[in-house]
Amino acid sequence: MAAIDTTRFLRDLHELRRIGEYRTGVHRPTYTKEDMESRRWLMDRMRECGLDPVMDGIGNVIGRHPGPGPHLLVGSHIETQNHAGWLDGALGVVAGLALARAGMAVDVAAWADEEGHYGGFIGSRSFIGQLPEEEIDRLENRYHGRKLRDALREAGLEGRPRIRWEPGRHKGFLELHIEQGTQLEAAGLRVGVVTGIVAIRQYRLVFTGQQDHAGGTTMAERRDAGLSAVRLLAEIDRHFPLVCGPRSTWTTGRIALDPGAASIIPGRAEVLFQLRDVDEAVIARMEDRLRALVQESNRREKCPCVLEPVSLSTPAPCDPAMQRALADAAEALAPGAWQSMPSGAGHDAQYLARVMPAAMLFTPSIAGISHHWTEDTREEDLALGVEVLAEGAARYLAT
Amino acid sequence: MAAIDTTRFLRDLHELRRIGEYRTGVHRPTYTKEDMESRRWLMDRMRECGLDPVMDGIGNVIGRHPGPGPHLLVGSHIETQNHAGWLDGALGVVAGLALARAGMAVDVAAWADEEGHYGGFIGSRSFIGQLPEEEIDRLENRYHGRKLRDALREAGLEGRPRIRWEPGRHKGFLELHIEQGTQLEAAGLRVGVVTGIVAIRQYRLVFTGQQDHAGGTTMAERRDAGLSAVRLLAEIDRHFPLVCGPRSTWTTGRIALDPGAASIIPGRAEVLFQLRDVDEAVIARMEDRLRALVQESNRREKCPCVLEPVSLSTPAPCDPAMQRALADAAEALAPGAWQSMPSGAGHDAQYLARVMPAAMLFTPSIAGISHHWTEDTREEDLALGVEVLAEGAARYLAT
Repeated sequence: MAAIDTTRFLRDLHELRRIGEYRTGVHRPTYTKEDMESRRWLMDRMRECGLDPVMDGIGNVIGRHPGPGPHLLVGSHIETQNHAGWLDGALGVVAGLALARAGMAVDVAAWADEEGHYGGFIGSRSFIGQLPEEEIDRLENRYHGRKLRDALREAGLEGRPRIRWEPGRHKGFLELHIEQGTQLEAAGLRVGVVTGIVAIRQYRLVFTGQQDHAGGTTMAERRDAGLSAVRLLAEIDRHFPLVCGPRSTWTTGRIALDPGAASIIPGRAEVLFQLRDVDEAVIARMEDRLRALVQESNRREKCPCVLEPVSLSTPAPCDPAMQRALADAAEALAPGAWQSMPSGAGHDAQYLARVMPAAMLFTPSIAGISHHWTEDTREEDLALGVEVLAEGAARYLAT
Repeated sequence: MAAIDTTRFLRDLHELRRIGEYRTGVHRPTYTKEDMESRRWLMDRMRECGLDPVMDGIGNVIGRHPGPGPHLLVGSHIETQNHAGWLDGALGVVAGLALARAGMAVDVAAWADEEGHYGGFIGSRSFIGQLPEEEIDRLENRYHGRKLRDALREAGLEGRPRIRWEPGRHKGFLELHIEQGTQLEAAGLRVGVVTGIVAIRQYRLVFTGQQDHAGGTTMAERRDAGLSAVRLLAEIDRHFPLVCGPRSTWTTGRIALDPGAASIIPGRAEVLFQLRDVDEAVIARMEDRLRALVQESNRREKCPCVLEPVSLSTPAPCDPAMQRALADAAEALAPGAWQSMPSGAGHDAQYLARVMPAAMLFTPSIAGISHHWTEDTREEDLALGVEVLAEGAARYLAT
C-alpha cells in the first residue's frame, strides 16, 4: 500500500471542523443544515479518493471501493452532540478517507445519528437490518420533539432506499475513535487497541411514597420516596464493589424527587441508574445483585420500588484476529506506547460486530474530555492513530 | 359572653370559600383579584360585628374592637397556596369574627402572605416591626417573579401606612388552625392545644465533583458529586435517630444532580434539607450532628460539601397561661377528646409570640391533607374548635 498522507488527513479533519464550528468545537446535530452539509462534503472527498458515494434513506453515507476485494469497511459517525467536540466520530470517518486515498481496498461509512438525537445508532442499525420502519415512525428528537420522519423529509432523505450490508463483501469493520477517558493519557500511552465494547444496562428506579407536609407528618408516619431511594443507592454503593469486575462502572445520573420542594415529603422518586462492563458474566452478577437489592428494599421500605429497564445493550467483543493485527501494527509503529483496553462508551462498531468481524482503535483524549467543545487530541497522536489503523488494516487483509 | 353562633360561623366560612373557588378548595394567591376581594369581604363582616376595620400598606386587615380592654388579638391569614384548601388560614380569621360577633373584646386580624407567595409571614412580621422596607424592595413572587412593590401598587396598597402593634393593647394572640397532620385523627381526638411552634432550619448542601463521561471514567478516577450526596444523606438517616427528640422531623425535599443525564457523572449535586423541632436544645443537637457529618464527609469523600443555611427560624413556645386556659376549655367542652401537641408547621403566631403572649388551637385535618384542594375538616369539629377557642379566650381574659 501507499503511505498514509497524514498532512492531508489532518487538513481534511480541520476542513470538516469548520462545518458547524462552535468555539474550538462543533455543533452539528443530526439532520440539521450543518450535518447535511458535512455529509455532502464527505461525498465530495470520497469521489476524490476514487470511491463511489451514496447517501441512503436514513442519512448513512457509504463510499464504495470500485476494485476487487477482499474489502474492509472503515468509518464512524459525522454528526456531533450539541456544542461538542471536533473529533468524536469525525476522526473515524476521515481516517477511512485516508486509507482509501492511500489506495487500500476499503469502503468508507458515516453512520447516521450515533449520538442519539433521534434514536441511537440508527444508521448502523439500519445497515445491519435492525431498524424496523415502526421504530422510525415512533422516534422523536430528544431535545425538541420533532418526529424523525419529518426530519428525514426536510433533509431530503424521504423515499431513498436504505442500504443494507452485503454478506461476503467485507472482511471486517474498523473504527478509529478518541478514547473519551483518561486511561491512555494517565499511562503516558498513545494508542489503545480495543478488546471489546461494554454493555450498557440502563434502568429507571421508581419509588412510590406519600406526598405530605414536612411539618405535620411524624417520621414514623412518613412514606418518603426520596429516603427509600437514598437508602437503596447507598446499598448499591456498598454491594457493587463485591460483585463487579476490574473495569465495571455504575452511575446514578439523575435523582428526581416529586414535587421537589423544601417542605414537602417526596411522594415519588425517580432515579436513572446504569451499569457497564465488557464481560457478560460480570454484567449478570451486577444485575443479579441489583435485583436482589431492590427486592430487599421492597421488604424493608414502606415505598415500593419498581426497576424498569430503559435500554439493555450486550457487550461486543472485538474480533481477535483484527485485534492481533492492530496490536502488531501498534507495536511496530509505537513500540511500548500502546495498550489493550475495553471501550467504556458505546460505538457503531458494536452493531457492525453483529454481522462481521469488527475492531476499534483509540487515540488519547486530552484530559479525558468529550461531548464538550474543548475536546481535543494532540495532532501527532491523531497522525499516529491513522497510521496504526492503516498498518493494522493491511496486516489483517493479508491474513 | 354571649354564646358562639356556630351556624353563622360555618356560613361565613362557606361564603368565603366561594371567593376563588377551585373544585372543593380555593385558589386565592396573595394580592390577586380574589385575595383582595376576600379582604374586602372580611372588612364588611367586621363592620357587621361592630369592629372598625382597616387594610394597611402590606395588605393586613385588622378589625379593631371599639370598647374597653383588656383585648385579645385573634386571627390568621386569608390568602391560600395555589389550588389549595378552604380552611388553611380562613378558619382562624373567621373564628375571630365569631368571637367578635359574640361580643367578646377581640381585635380580629388577617395577616398578609403567610403562605409566602412573595416572602413568608410578611404581614405578621410587618405588624411586629420586623419587615424592613429594603426587604419589601427586594421580594418577588416565587412563582412568576413579579416584584412585591408592583403587586402592592396594583392591589391599591401603595402609600398606605403599615399598622404596627400597640404595646399594652393586647393581652395575647390566639390562632385557630387546621392541624395539617394526622395526629388528632389517628388518636380519635377533636382538639389540639398547641405547646409551641417548631423551629425550621433549612439548608442547602452543595457538593462539587467532576463532570465526566460515565463510560470513559473508571470508578477509582471519579469524583461523583451525586454519590457523595447519597452517602451523606444515608449517614444522616442513620445518625439523626440517635440525637433527635420524639417529635423531631428532617426532610430532604430535593436532590438535583448536574447535568442530570443518564451517561454523565454528576459534577455538582445540590440537596435541600431541613430539620424541625420545638425544642431549641434538640435543634442544637441535630445541627451539631449535621455539621459533624458534613465534616466527616469532607474528610472521606473526594467531592467537598458546603452546608449553606437558607433560613433558620427559632422555636416559638406557646404562652403557658393561655395554653392552660385553652386546655381547661377543651376539657370542659370535649372531655377526653383533646391533647397537647406541638405544631410542626410555621404559623403567624410564631411572630406574634415575639411581642405578646400567643397560643394556638388545632382542629383535625381529614387524612392530614393540606396545601391541596381536597383539604377538609368535619363541620362538627370546626364548630367545636371555635367554641373551645371562645371559652379559652374568655377564661384567659378573666385571669
